Amino acid sequence: MPNPSTPAPNPRPLGSRRIELLTLGDELLLGLTPNSHLTWIGEQLGRRGVQLARNVTVSDEADLIAAEVRAAWARADVVITTGGLGPTCDDRTREAVAAAIGQPLVHDPAIERAIADRFAKLGRRMTPNNLKQADRFERGEVLPNANGTAPGLWVEQDGRVLVMLPGPPNELRPLFTEQVLPRLARLGLIGEHEAYIQLRTAGVGESALETRLQPVFAPHGDALSVAYCAHFWRADVRLSSPSGRLGPAALQAIANECAALLGEDFVNFGHDSLARVVSDLFRAQEKTLAVAESCTSGLFSGQFTDICGASKFFRGSLVCYGNFAKMQVLDVPESLIEQHGAVSDEVAVAMATGVAEAFEADYGVAITGYSGPGGGTTATPAGTIHLGLHSPQGVWSKKMNYAAARAAVQERAVTMALDWLRRELGRAASGVSAPPRRATLIG
Amino acid sequence: MPNPSTPAPNPRPLGSRRIELLTLGDELLLGLTPNSHLTWIGEQLGRRGVQLARNVTVSDEADLIAAEVRAAWARADVVITTGGLGPTCDDRTREAVAAAIGQPLVHDPAIERAIADRFAKLGRRMTPNNLKQADRFERGEVLPNANGTAPGLWVEQDGRVLVMLPGPPNELRPLFTEQVLPRLARLGLIGEHEAYIQLRTAGVGESALETRLQPVFAPHGDALSVAYCAHFWRADVRLSSPSGRLGPAALQAIANECAALLGEDFVNFGHDSLARVVSDLFRAQEKTLAVAESCTSGLFSGQFTDICGASKFFRGSLVCYGNFAKMQVLDVPESLIEQHGAVSDEVAVAMATGVAEAFEADYGVAITGYSGPGGGTTATPAGTIHLGLHSPQGVWSKKMNYAAARAAVQERAVTMALDWLRRELGRAASGVSAPPRRATLIG
Repeated sequence: MPNPSTPAPNPRPLGSRRIELLTLGDELLLGLTPNSHLTWIGEQLGRRGVQLARNVTVSDEADLIAAEVRAAWARADVVITTGGLGPTCDDRTREAVAAAIGQPLVHDPAIERAIADRFAKLGRRMTPNNLKQADRFERGEVLPNANGTAPGLWVEQDGRVLVMLPGPPNELRPLFTEQVLPRLARLGLIGEHEAYIQLRTAGVGESALETRLQPVFAPHGDALSVAYCAHFWRADVRLSSPSGRLGPAALQAIANECAALLGEDFVNFGHDSLARVVSDLFRAQEKTLAVAESCTSGLFSGQFTDICGASKFFRGSLVCYGNFAKMQVLDVPESLIEQHGAVSDEVAVAMATGVAEAFEADYGVAITGYSGPGGGTTATPAGTIHLGLHSPQGVWSKKMNYAAARAAVQERAVTMALDWLRRELGRAASGVSAPPRRATLIG
Repeated sequence: MPNPSTPAPNPRPLGSRRIELLTLGDELLLGLTPNSHLTWIGEQLGRRGVQLARNVTVSDEADLIAAEVRAAWARADVVITTGGLGPTCDDRTREAVAAAIGQPLVHDPAIERAIADRFAKLGRRMTPNNLKQADRFERGEVLPNANGTAPGLWVEQDGRVLVMLPGPPNELRPLFTEQVLPRLARLGLIGEHEAYIQLRTAGVGESALETRLQPVFAPHGDALSVAYCAHFWRADVRLSSPSGRLGPAALQAIANECAALLGEDFVNFGHDSLARVVSDLFRAQEKTLAVAESCTSGLFSGQFTDICGASKFFRGSLVCYGNFAKMQVLDVPESLIEQHGAVSDEVAVAMATGVAEAFEADYGVAITGYSGPGGGTTATPAGTIHLGLHSPQGVWSKKMNYAAARAAVQERAVTMALDWLRRELGRAASGVSAPPRRATLIG
């Protein structure tokens, strides 16, 4: 059995590593479940400097699996399979893979004990089906699964690696992060650390960003590789040095220079979302937030759903479709709506203040507009959104006009509002009280 | 050129049709974008009786594409590619595919005119890049793209079909539904109509459902195929007759029998979501809805985001994390929270009535609980959720206890609440006023 603690230094550059992913399951082919393993594993490997070479999805049937594993095994450095290990899966999945790589399966009493223990702890009885989950490859290893019965299986053979992972994401992900990534890194098949430094920015388009950062990048010529990834109102910049001529410290120095140059348009380094950055600012400053949305129908507040501890600062939110709720719950005067319309700077401001007061929050955000495709008027066409921001420093509104598909309009409005909060919280922390650019100061 | 109006009847059963999907793009392999084409196309084909045989994702590079198309073309009845047709894509994508299937490309002046017209209408100038989008296969056809510049390409050759589709979903989906599906059906490669009748049910587990429906299915033996697909608090039943021994009318008669037997637990036939069914009931009865959520943080109201016309009945919603908003905005008495706790039948009922009154809605739904993993108390552990329902017929609460992952707890609570609304609206329409099962009648 190969000893995974011995590093196998490999002189080939990371970019030439070939990793293939085989995802198994009818539910993927029938569209019942999205192929989230491709998205998640692809991202993890990309961060370590290796782009997944290929993903194949087939049914969980022994013959199909054997053919795909054989083909991938013939040309890849690493073959990863997901699914096909559950007790109700095709019994012959493991056998098919074993045949494809030319290794027999052996029953492993230690796995059987771990499965039996798990069942005992859950107060359930082990079924004979679970017994086949106690098989491993003869010259392979076992990757313990803390969240399910089927362990991962690991084989190193002829300079290649085969990894079989259980399908449920809550089992696969910790197993991949804690066991597979470190093992692949030790073998030199992926980077030990992140392959690039990511700067997240907001409020600057991709080409404007490129122009502004060019003076920082130019001196480094082709030693520096720069990739842009634009979203709505956000853009990420990834700095790397595929040739290795710029080390981590040099790359970080360049990234710092970019951040300083971008000022407020720089959001953060790394992978944290804008909502996470805003959450951290709220928690650090011990301030609270409340939100009123109409045309984004809960998408803004939904940004905080998955953020642990959001309830510490997020007082709550209101989605109001009609004018009644605006008037009744948020205390927006009917006369204001009649005079200026529900989609106006004036109403956005009144909503922001109204929601902050209703929830007794320090900050109030309001989004009112027409996401389209229908709605809108000649003066205020679909794609027109007014944002309102109530803060301890004052209250402002901002108008955006974006002729695009409904989901794009909504995403941009939500991102703009989050980014506005981020800037305002940043200014509050640094004691700067100038009103934000492009904003109308009302009262 | 083959004439697509001539049907090519093919005696092989649909199940033996082999359709392969090739999805192109680094963004899929790097996890920047989920592979939604697999999910969506897989579902469309599944509904017509053919399970996608295989999906391969590779980078948009000519050599890789050529190899994959050649392999798929050698064994499949239909090969579908997505992506690789944009003006900034690898120039050689079309050439690579042309080489793989042994047909030259020709420039099509009609496509060029369509592209030029599109640019003129948008007030933009066509770039030389766009010219290559005017190529088609010599003995192939063009599938016009109403939402973008690159048309789809269609080839019938040696009894097989190759389809190349543009990558953006808003271009691909209408093109697939309006042009590709009818063509494949005409050639007998997929079913003319839906391959199964789907019954959607709620409130019954998969095995209980199987037991209840067995007497309806038993007389039909193996002429009838039944597949179950269980979700949280919902289950779908798909009835088909792969042998063809039961025609559409016979299948519908069996489905009707199931629906009658299931009574209120039957939701609908087809693919409409529970939220859509509830929306239709609200609109038909001209009633309105308001929602207050805590532990599901907007997931309930998010069910209506994509439903066109939801603003006609959905007055609005409130997400409240702390007790303050419950008291302030919803008028839940502080003493009630102190005596019974925020997660209790009493508070759920007060929230439901409070939100209905705040938004002046006929129906009010409240969800309060601990989604986990943290939170909860010994008496009220994580996974405990109380639902409240205020309706013109009365006000009730319901308790659910579900020890599972956070997202599962939330999905089940949201589905239970939607389903409760559905049942209550159904009873209101039929004049039945009995309180729902498992409900506590309060005041």
